[in-house]
Amino acid sequence: MVNVPKVKLNNGTEMPLVGFGLWKVPTESASDVVYEAIKAGYRLFDGAFDYGNEKECGQGVARAIAEGIVTRADLFIVSKLWNTFHEYERVEPIVRQQLEWWGLEYFDLFHIHFPVAIKYVDPAVSYPSGWQDLDGKVTPIRAPIQKTWEALENLYDQGLFKSIGVSNFQGGLLLDLLRYARVPPAVLQVELHPYLVQQELVELAKENGIALTAYSSFGPQSFLELSFKNAADTPALFEHPAIKKIAEAHGKSPAQVLLRWSTQRGIAVIPKSNSKHRLPENLDICSFDMTDDELKSISALDKNLRFNNPRDYLGTLQIFA
Amino acid sequence: MVNVPKVKLNNGTEMPLVGFGLWKVPTESASDVVYEAIKAGYRLFDGAFDYGNEKECGQGVARAIAEGIVTRADLFIVSKLWNTFHEYERVEPIVRQQLEWWGLEYFDLFHIHFPVAIKYVDPAVSYPSGWQDLDGKVTPIRAPIQKTWEALENLYDQGLFKSIGVSNFQGGLLLDLLRYARVPPAVLQVELHPYLVQQELVELAKENGIALTAYSSFGPQSFLELSFKNAADTPALFEHPAIKKIAEAHGKSPAQVLLRWSTQRGIAVIPKSNSKHRLPENLDICSFDMTDDELKSISALDKNLRFNNPRDYLGTLQIFA
Repeated sequence: MVNVPKVKLNNGTEMPLVGFGLWKVPTESASDVVYEAIKAGYRLFDGAFDYGNEKECGQGVARAIAEGIVTRADLFIVSKLWNTFHEYERVEPIVRQQLEWWGLEYFDLFHIHFPVAIKYVDPAVSYPSGWQDLDGKVTPIRAPIQKTWEALENLYDQGLFKSIGVSNFQGGLLLDLLRYARVPPAVLQVELHPYLVQQELVELAKENGIALTAYSSFGPQSFLELSFKNAADTPALFEHPAIKKIAEAHGKSPAQVLLRWSTQRGIAVIPKSNSKHRLPENLDICSFDMTDDELKSISALDKNLRFNNPRDYLGTLQIFA
Repeated sequence: MVNVPKVKLNNGTEMPLVGFGLWKVPTESASDVVYEAIKAGYRLFDGAFDYGNEKECGQGVARAIAEGIVTRADLFIVSKLWNTFHEYERVEPIVRQQLEWWGLEYFDLFHIHFPVAIKYVDPAVSYPSGWQDLDGKVTPIRAPIQKTWEALENLYDQGLFKSIGVSNFQGGLLLDLLRYARVPPAVLQVELHPYLVQQELVELAKENGIALTAYSSFGPQSFLELSFKNAADTPALFEHPAIKKIAEAHGKSPAQVLLRWSTQRGIAVIPKSNSKHRLPENLDICSFDMTDDELKSISALDKNLRFNNPRDYLGTLQIFA
């Protein structure tokens, strides 16, 4: 079994540097995918209300535990608060619902998914509800991050989370959170790949003792299935000569090089694969080291090119402006 | 006298689209500079605690009023809260001090200068104190923007400001401010020039009824006197062929084209000039129109290149990450 290093969080707990991302894992296969990933050695699973598959993912976990493959304590289960639940009093009910779906008593890490607060949609009526309310509109509400964070802190105190974090937060907002947080965020999860290097944000997180998780490590690849035009128009990182050259030099795949570019710098990754044979490949990304020059040549591909931007797909909510 | 258009703010007041920026105006000449600018037709003056010249600027205003050139009501005086005064109880005393320096009973607009809260430095001991405390260190403190904003709202209620705004705020933080603000920000002042177009931030401001003021409209030019290396290494916009070509076509100077690029889109500008003969030139920038193609060709110079970034000159405070 592959040995996955862990990163120590600012509250003393440890998080695996490599996990499995559950975004876009279909409900039909989610249970099997999670189960097989556990068998392949994955311990961290990165879920979210918005991914719409928490119940099925929980079934995969339950099966692996029932078969004695892992215990709950071996696993690191991550979930996230969707934008429609930012009002203080809505946080606890949905967290308890999400825990029930997973069949868990606690999450190892729970993020605010986006720094966006939009109108509540009852999950019994629309699940996952996405960005639009039932009228098809994106309706911001006045639920400040500070109150939402306070709600998460209180559930952290109750033991519902081992750690709390934020996702898709940028500099000024993150620095403001640090000013009022009683429990500082342990992890920041953001889009991060060689076309979106975000060196300044990486420095900010490091300087403030916040661990980083990179999502969409393969860049445009993650967005092709969503038919994002800018993803289709951007050269695939898997085929990029700079990446291929380094991959060949190390006898690794381009995917492994892209993931190692993050993990070698202590940044966690959460690749997803719906195909069983890629599971070991994506997990085995801490057993080789690139040179500093190789890391730099990958970072030099930076285009400040972001794919997951609500402004681009909704025409509003310019959280990355 | 040049007729300067005004932009209507979200609270019904009006702000001139062209003003005079007081950053880097030396104390020795500040009084004369302001007086001459008023004589040349300037009505908006953009000051700040950090510029270290508020008393002298106020003397220039007093002289112009005493000579009957303008009345207080004709002027639009802007100032800003420095980072060392973000704690709730420090806001009112320093605002009253700044008003006293200016010799004014109210500011037309008062900004939070940066989304940065650092350790208090007594202005009687160090003025302007800049980013470092008396030990030469940059020391963040836990004063959240929400409380600082609340302090400004209360002084707004008292009539000390006609409008309140923020400066150097980016997307996520600005959207969060809008969630809790009882008085929404009327104006956002940011670095904005053809090398830093910030289209997404411009959209955000517009969508949320916030007027924009562009600072450093000439790009690197504004930072040469600070010996910023990236400014020296960047081709001057005044000499850029794309700018010169448009300037020649309209019989205007490159400076006028750069300023009009903002004002034609309803974005206010605050050029500074220490030379008297440029005063009319910089003020007369609303009397010609460029074509859409010309505006676009200027915006196409975008390099996402920011000069005024604390991270670059302090190595910390990554507010733009």
